[in-house]
Amino acid sequence: MSLLGPLFRWDALEPLLSDRARVQGMLDFEAALARAEARASVIPATAARVVSRCCIAERFDVDALGVEASVAGNPAIPVVKALTALVAKDDPEAARYVHWGATSQDAMDTGLVLQLRPALGALDAELERLADVLAALADRHRSTVLAGRTWMQQAGPTTFGLKAAGWLDAILRHRVRLRDLRSRALVLQLGGAVGTLAALGDKGLEVATAVAEELRLALPALPWHAHRDRPAAVATVLGLGAGTLGKIARDVALHAQTEVGELAEPEAPGRGGSSTLPHKQNPVASAVVLAAATRIPGLVATMLAAMVEEDERALGAWHAEWETLPEIVSLFGGALHHLTDALSGLRVDEVLMAANLETTRGLVFAEAVQMALAPRTGRAAAQRLVEAACRSARADGRHLREVLAGDAEVARHLSPADIGPLFDARRYLGASDGMIDRVLAAHRAASAKPGES
Amino acid sequence: MSLLGPLFRWDALEPLLSDRARVQGMLDFEAALARAEARASVIPATAARVVSRCCIAERFDVDALGVEASVAGNPAIPVVKALTALVAKDDPEAARYVHWGATSQDAMDTGLVLQLRPALGALDAELERLADVLAALADRHRSTVLAGRTWMQQAGPTTFGLKAAGWLDAILRHRVRLRDLRSRALVLQLGGAVGTLAALGDKGLEVATAVAEELRLALPALPWHAHRDRPAAVATVLGLGAGTLGKIARDVALHAQTEVGELAEPEAPGRGGSSTLPHKQNPVASAVVLAAATRIPGLVATMLAAMVEEDERALGAWHAEWETLPEIVSLFGGALHHLTDALSGLRVDEVLMAANLETTRGLVFAEAVQMALAPRTGRAAAQRLVEAACRSARADGRHLREVLAGDAEVARHLSPADIGPLFDARRYLGASDGMIDRVLAAHRAASAKPGES
Amino acid sequence: MSLLGPLFRWDALEPLLSDRARVQGMLDFEAALARAEARASVIPATAARVVSRCCIAERFDVDALGVEASVAGNPAIPVVKALTALVAKDDPEAARYVHWGATSQDAMDTGLVLQLRPALGALDAELERLADVLAALADRHRSTVLAGRTWMQQAGPTTFGLKAAGWLDAILRHRVRLRDLRSRALVLQLGGAVGTLAALGDKGLEVATAVAEELRLALPALPWHAHRDRPAAVATVLGLGAGTLGKIARDVALHAQTEVGELAEPEAPGRGGSSTLPHKQNPVASAVVLAAATRIPGLVATMLAAMVEEDERALGAWHAEWETLPEIVSLFGGALHHLTDALSGLRVDEVLMAANLETTRGLVFAEAVQMALAPRTGRAAAQRLVEAACRSARADGRHLREVLAGDAEVARHLSPADIGPLFDARRYLGASDGMIDRVLAAHRAASAKPGES
Amino acid sequence: MSLLGPLFRWDALEPLLSDRARVQGMLDFEAALARAEARASVIPATAARVVSRCCIAERFDVDALGVEASVAGNPAIPVVKALTALVAKDDPEAARYVHWGATSQDAMDTGLVLQLRPALGALDAELERLADVLAALADRHRSTVLAGRTWMQQAGPTTFGLKAAGWLDAILRHRVRLRDLRSRALVLQLGGAVGTLAALGDKGLEVATAVAEELRLALPALPWHAHRDRPAAVATVLGLGAGTLGKIARDVALHAQTEVGELAEPEAPGRGGSSTLPHKQNPVASAVVLAAATRIPGLVATMLAAMVEEDERALGAWHAEWETLPEIVSLFGGALHHLTDALSGLRVDEVLMAANLETTRGLVFAEAVQMALAPRTGRAAAQRLVEAACRSARADGRHLREVLAGDAEVARHLSPADIGPLFDARRYLGASDGMIDRVLAAHRAASAKPGES
Repeated sequence: MSLLGPLFRWDALEPLLSDRARVQGMLDFEAALARAEARASVIPATAARVVSRCCIAERFDVDALGVEASVAGNPAIPVVKALTALVAKDDPEAARYVHWGATSQDAMDTGLVLQLRPALGALDAELERLADVLAALADRHRSTVLAGRTWMQQAGPTTFGLKAAGWLDAILRHRVRLRDLRSRALVLQLGGAVGTLAALGDKGLEVATAVAEELRLALPALPWHAHRDRPAAVATVLGLGAGTLGKIARDVALHAQTEVGELAEPEAPGRGGSSTLPHKQNPVASAVVLAAATRIPGLVATMLAAMVEEDERALGAWHAEWETLPEIVSLFGGALHHLTDALSGLRVDEVLMAANLETTRGLVFAEAVQMALAPRTGRAAAQRLVEAACRSARADGRHLREVLAGDAEVARHLSPADIGPLFDARRYLGASDGMIDRVLAAHRAASAKPGES
Repeated sequence: MSLLGPLFRWDALEPLLSDRARVQGMLDFEAALARAEARASVIPATAARVVSRCCIAERFDVDALGVEASVAGNPAIPVVKALTALVAKDDPEAARYVHWGATSQDAMDTGLVLQLRPALGALDAELERLADVLAALADRHRSTVLAGRTWMQQAGPTTFGLKAAGWLDAILRHRVRLRDLRSRALVLQLGGAVGTLAALGDKGLEVATAVAEELRLALPALPWHAHRDRPAAVATVLGLGAGTLGKIARDVALHAQTEVGELAEPEAPGRGGSSTLPHKQNPVASAVVLAAATRIPGLVATMLAAMVEEDERALGAWHAEWETLPEIVSLFGGALHHLTDALSGLRVDEVLMAANLETTRGLVFAEAVQMALAPRTGRAAAQRLVEAACRSARADGRHLREVLAGDAEVARHLSPADIGPLFDARRYLGASDGMIDRVLAAHRAASAKPGES
Repeated sequence: MSLLGPLFRWDALEPLLSDRARVQGMLDFEAALARAEARASVIPATAARVVSRCCIAERFDVDALGVEASVAGNPAIPVVKALTALVAKDDPEAARYVHWGATSQDAMDTGLVLQLRPALGALDAELERLADVLAALADRHRSTVLAGRTWMQQAGPTTFGLKAAGWLDAILRHRVRLRDLRSRALVLQLGGAVGTLAALGDKGLEVATAVAEELRLALPALPWHAHRDRPAAVATVLGLGAGTLGKIARDVALHAQTEVGELAEPEAPGRGGSSTLPHKQNPVASAVVLAAATRIPGLVATMLAAMVEEDERALGAWHAEWETLPEIVSLFGGALHHLTDALSGLRVDEVLMAANLETTRGLVFAEAVQMALAPRTGRAAAQRLVEAACRSARADGRHLREVLAGDAEVARHLSPADIGPLFDARRYLGASDGMIDRVLAAHRAASAKPGES
Repeated sequence: MSLLGPLFRWDALEPLLSDRARVQGMLDFEAALARAEARASVIPATAARVVSRCCIAERFDVDALGVEASVAGNPAIPVVKALTALVAKDDPEAARYVHWGATSQDAMDTGLVLQLRPALGALDAELERLADVLAALADRHRSTVLAGRTWMQQAGPTTFGLKAAGWLDAILRHRVRLRDLRSRALVLQLGGAVGTLAALGDKGLEVATAVAEELRLALPALPWHAHRDRPAAVATVLGLGAGTLGKIARDVALHAQTEVGELAEPEAPGRGGSSTLPHKQNPVASAVVLAAATRIPGLVATMLAAMVEEDERALGAWHAEWETLPEIVSLFGGALHHLTDALSGLRVDEVLMAANLETTRGLVFAEAVQMALAPRTGRAAAQRLVEAACRSARADGRHLREVLAGDAEVARHLSPADIGPLFDARRYLGASDGMIDRVLAAHRAASAKPGES
């Protein structure tokens, strides 16, 4: 795709976002417009047929269109001009009816929607693949204990299954958002010069309805040339999704640190190497995802800022969308795809997970001790008591269990036989299992309704 | 509220976003937690009663909490400490059970949700008021013609009713988004230290269910301490809404320009004056709304960037939300309220709207002429013909009608009697009326289902 | 360049930002490194010669490098590998010394700096061209009166020369910022794996000094692998510049509105047309510049957010820069170039400028009247008096002069002979001329010191 | 300051950014304007004296000003009105000359500059304190070895001194940027209604020069009401600084992880505790700094986006700055202050730093081995050889040294006596020491020129 494309993008998605696809989107609009106008007896049926069969992007010179677009101010003008010329070669009479009653933005916006439809479909399918991968991790590791970390400090035991379930739970919400988006944002744009469809006389709504049918798009109440919440919502939904992908990648990267070692991205020859360090196995997918999660928020802000459009069609703000929205889709797709691949082969070191729970010499079980004391002492008093024990353990480099065993105040409430099991992670997992079940059930329910998404 | 508060904010909303409301939100959580734990026999019923009745923000010293929060790292720690002390005064035994099994973020996040609930409710009510105002404008001005403008140039005739209907249509979509948000984002946070509810032993899900009932919040599948798509979605939905408010304000400001004069914000003594210019009537509400629309995208980007959280609870990213999300709500609310007020009293100068359609000496009707010629000449040829006439009209300072009347080529297709009506805006409004009807119907349908929002 | 490239970008700049240029940048680094190491007797002189002559981007397959980069995680790794193979074909012995002691990021960052050097030079030259155009406008139009507008309302008379001088003054400041940037941001990156240059033994600083000399780059105190303020400062300086370009474009667009008509972008066949409207002459350059000014702030935010890098080299944050910084340079360059072209041929309608000063029937001279009264009545009283007259003029549709002539209170202070000249814009221009002189002098001074930039 | 203020802000800075300080800034402008106008014989000297002595913010009711500002559209209008009334009580004649010839934005912008002056001064002093702390760390720990980490993986040995020197080096660059900023951004705003100073007749530049003198501010070539690069540059410079603060905090947080343990923020009673976890010592300062570094980029983007202002004074864009720029200053100041405090008491665990270098069983020294082999085998061959050894070591859980010792190919080039020292971190630090010296010298040089900053 280019020097950085294969790293940052998803090869299955890029063709949908290419210049050629953009031209094809506009041509699909022009073809459908002609057919719809023929159905409404606005233009002759023959003309519609000829126009339709000329609407093939490969027959257009993208670079030449680009040069003309730089004079005209948008690419639809040269596309319409080139299409008219192409049609004229076949049938001069048909050429009279090209782009009848429409405006550049009708072609560009509808073309964009036509590009987004398969792109969002591909993203949803990939989100489903990711969800399946995460569901398998959640289920397989429901008893794999590791240290839960808060503020980047070990806090207490949890399971890797629960962590994966948390990732999955968020992905399921993004699938719902994407489903809503696909039903709401993928609508026809057709308004003519100022959004009244005046050039179609009294046939405006009839034609619009027919174009929507031709393209299997919803018909909006009125044109949205200068009301950009629909494309901006595509940006925000993917922006939210990128945040979750970034969160998962951050977790993977933190767990893959040399000193932690609990997770690793899949190995492959040359993968994550270094130009100088022979021992390196860098988490490449995490880097790609984190880069996307760093870049997308600013791009979303651009889409939101560009919503402040003037009058019936904006000057500059609309232009600001043209490269920005496809870039968001592309970066999100790349991150999603590479993350899904990496998680499919995620290496989980259960032994190190368990071993790292010993790093603190028992401090990570402090809350368990506290909650055992609390019914006897009250929560706050128990917290103070255990805090003191932790300080003492830390100062002397002793295991918290030993310190507690030697503490007279503790001894009044807990026997040595009470204390031992408090340091068993498997006994302090609370509702972890039940929570995993809840998420897996939601995942199964979501997967069972493919029709809805 | 402060030097700039009354200008930028909405006085009905600010109390819901105050420090005191934030403390009360945490206290409401603590009270509900205690009651729920009593129901589940985790703590004594008496303790729950005492805790509950101490949970009144007015009994706490916000400034002192702030100082302690700066040491502890979050405000929930001193709130719990102060609450424990307060309860202890009433009933030392009850004090043993304060904040049982919960973590700071449970209190803070649930408290935030409890603040957002009435805030989002107020925003929806105000959006409905705005929708009503816009619906009235759309209906009243369905025959008020004015120049539609694209790229900040007069393009063709439209109606002010259609413009208002376009604004309304977008607002209706934001109401749907807000309705979804209220049903999805307002959920309980309860997970304990690392999200397992381990401190509640095997009563975790039972307690969580009961707390959700107490607070009338939905129970999520699992805690969302480090999964921030829900609060971030509040930001994005309001961000999308702010874009539309900004678009409306931009339109008002453009139409209120001295040389345009078609719209004006309501007059009031001192409103929009100047410290030096005696004649000024500045569009203050537009300024306020445009400022908000300029500020909110960057804040939304912050919320998205902050989604990349570490492990079970993040370091810094979570903190980044604390002031940012309320700021978005506040700025959006201020913009919405001031815009609604201004549009309620919007002055519409129908005479100037009609008069400005004459500014171009007929050029604004060029497409009407072209579409009259097109059936005879083809669309592209008609466009070339009319382009030439426009150039000629511009060069000689003549009315396009006159130029056309003297054009031999045009005369072959259009008689003078054909040409005259092409310059009547009312005859070139296309589907404007039908589109307005469609939006008004959608508005009525939305208003009829208050239960759903 | 592509479908949208010619519209949004500057053809003279794009080759400097291409994939090929990026590869060449890395190769230039590798060649300089080899030569420097030969000078320091770290590697054999023959090896350096062979490496040097292989460092030609055309000999590399960019797409193949891209595919390998997606596995390795960065493009320097395959570049070094391919270079090593290429060198080996010529001289297997020389191939032993390719990339000696350096790390991927050394090649990529220094390569970026080598791309930025001519790019920033081109931008400065184009800024100078813009400054010259603006200086000519400021001088030529120092007596061209028009309405100064505040809050999008006519406020008082000013000159178009002063407006152009204001634009110029800002551009001069950006030239200073760019000059500073070029002297500060264009520094060598060379640190080896963790920034210690350990692989070069005790020759590290000697080699680094020699590489800096080879490439005519400054030598930093230490490597900046994870300290990104230099590249981020490139982003912020261009971000500030984009704000000014956007401000100028906004001004042009507002003055080019149909109802204002004071300015117009140059005409050319097909320029700013429409796919349906035959009379349209859209301000294309303004649209392009406003689009860039809308997009760049979000990209700058990305560069700032990406500064939070981990340890000696970051995971993801560094990656986030790779496409973002070149995009900022490219968008800024496109906007700058197209704006400069448009302003070079800017059409200024002095007659309409003067005529629009009459739109308000004298209200635009209200301050002039007030300041004539103020010495007699005090400023606040004068303001109240004129405010009342303005209200009366507005209500009755009369010229402010008439209203004042009939006002008894005014008559006590000003005779009709006093009042008349107050409505002459040329008499109420204050220090406009002197300010223009000050800016033009600064421009001349800046142009006289080409050596400094 | 409020519930979150003490945590996120710096108490020494907040008074400079308060509402009262904002009012005082405007009053200082009004006082200086009056004195300057008296010097230029524009208004009577007595009037200037009375105005001057009334310009004390404590005499104004900030809340009442806020309410009036919400009607007027900006706070300068009610300030001028209230000041006029106050002066009138003392001397009705003097009241006639309040705010003579100025506009609201003159007062607000100059007032802002007067607030920024001490605020930026305080920030520079605190940056110097931070630089001193870092210089001490760099010097003290120049021989403290630890693992350098890239892509969040151990890469090779470095020193903590070099890490601190890297932090310091960046801070020194920010001090230069801040010094430039203070000399360039702190300029007078005085232009009157449309920037011509017309209300001052032919005394405009004389008065402006005198006001600048009174306030010890630079006099710009012309007013910058709608040219906002100066305030936006304040935002970008602090934005760059925030990136570095965030980078340092990220480093501290990563090194403070439970499994790493090399650094810790200072301990204090209650500091970084938890509402439920008795053993927690959260890095609170790091969280605060990272939050600021997450928030500031979006705010900077707002300042850049707001630069696209209309005509002589903007509608909304200027308003967008009013709360945003002080917020940036405040968040940056809070982060800087809390980070400096934390680093002043930073706990460095040299033993763990050394111990963690053993985590990889020698892999972290792979490059050292490779560079010992490379002169014999060539760099690429050496890399392949060591890569294989690393794989083998990893697979078998053996120390790399052992694997190498048993490798026949390695034995051809390196004897056991050669291999041993390659695993001594102290022998593989390259130019670390020299680099530290370079940065410390730069720090001393910067500190020696207080006059320049």
